[in-house]
Amino acid sequence: MTEAKIEADPKLPIIRITREFAATPAQLLRAHTDPDLFVQWCGPDSLVNKIDYWDARTGGSWRYVASRNGEEYAFHGSFHQVGPDRIVQTFTFEGQPDGVALETLWFEDLGDGRTRLHAQSLVDSFEGRDAWLQSGMEVGVEEGYAKLERLAVEGRI
Amino acid sequence: MTEAKIEADPKLPIIRITREFAATPAQLLRAHTDPDLFVQWCGPDSLVNKIDYWDARTGGSWRYVASRNGEEYAFHGSFHQVGPDRIVQTFTFEGQPDGVALETLWFEDLGDGRTRLHAQSLVDSFEGRDAWLQSGMEVGVEEGYAKLERLAVEGRI
Repeated sequence: MTEAKIEADPKLPIIRITREFAATPAQLLRAHTDPDLFVQWCGPDSLVNKIDYWDARTGGSWRYVASRNGEEYAFHGSFHQVGPDRIVQTFTFEGQPDGVALETLWFEDLGDGRTRLHAQSLVDSFEGRDAWLQSGMEVGVEEGYAKLERLAVEGRI
Repeated sequence: MTEAKIEADPKLPIIRITREFAATPAQLLRAHTDPDLFVQWCGPDSLVNKIDYWDARTGGSWRYVASRNGEEYAFHGSFHQVGPDRIVQTFTFEGQPDGVALETLWFEDLGDGRTRLHAQSLVDSFEGRDAWLQSGMEVGVEEGYAKLERLAVEGRI
């Protein structure tokens, strides 16, 4: 079974995630930039995502709301750079409106239709980073990436 | 004489700058968001700034080119958050296109028409942070903020 590796950098306020997928870099880029695909896989299984706005180009911005039984969690950010094998974006959970992470994703082509996704999330304090790690975020990462893998395997990306 | 204080955080890959101005928070916000004002003060005296694009709202983006005797230095980024007393933005110098900083500015109202500007620049390595510090950036900071102070004192903001 493929699992995401989630690591806290010992010297920098960074979380790094890596995960292999049965998809090309172009397919992973599409899964992260096409809003109709993105809502189908991002986050834990228990939440349903709805796009508020989404403009996946360098200089664009995005916002979506994840909900469960009437509870809502909203997120927004800017796309600093989009594609072809790299996305750099800002990320704020609106429950903590002054918090912001700088996220860098890149897609390492392994050949034979496989790609290793590298995701780096940088914040400005170790406390904020460690609180995020202890929030149960790994459930969202694992379940979300499992959904993304299924989309790829089923030929839906 | 008012000078900017430029500090490297000992434990985080952050540069922090503080500087007082004879201006209100609203005036400093305008100086950072109105492109016609911004080009008049940002950076060292020896460079002339020209806006390429500029959309200073939450979710907008910006690019400008600074030139001197035919040499050009281009910069671009996204406005993650704008105002009223805080700007969060990404920043890339296109000479190092994979480098990106997450910048947070906030305007501390000191009363009597004075404001302390706090600027924090976060990057993902100490090497990158220290190279930036050693690049002569303090000349641009000091000369730029001196121009901004003059604009405020002359009632042009």
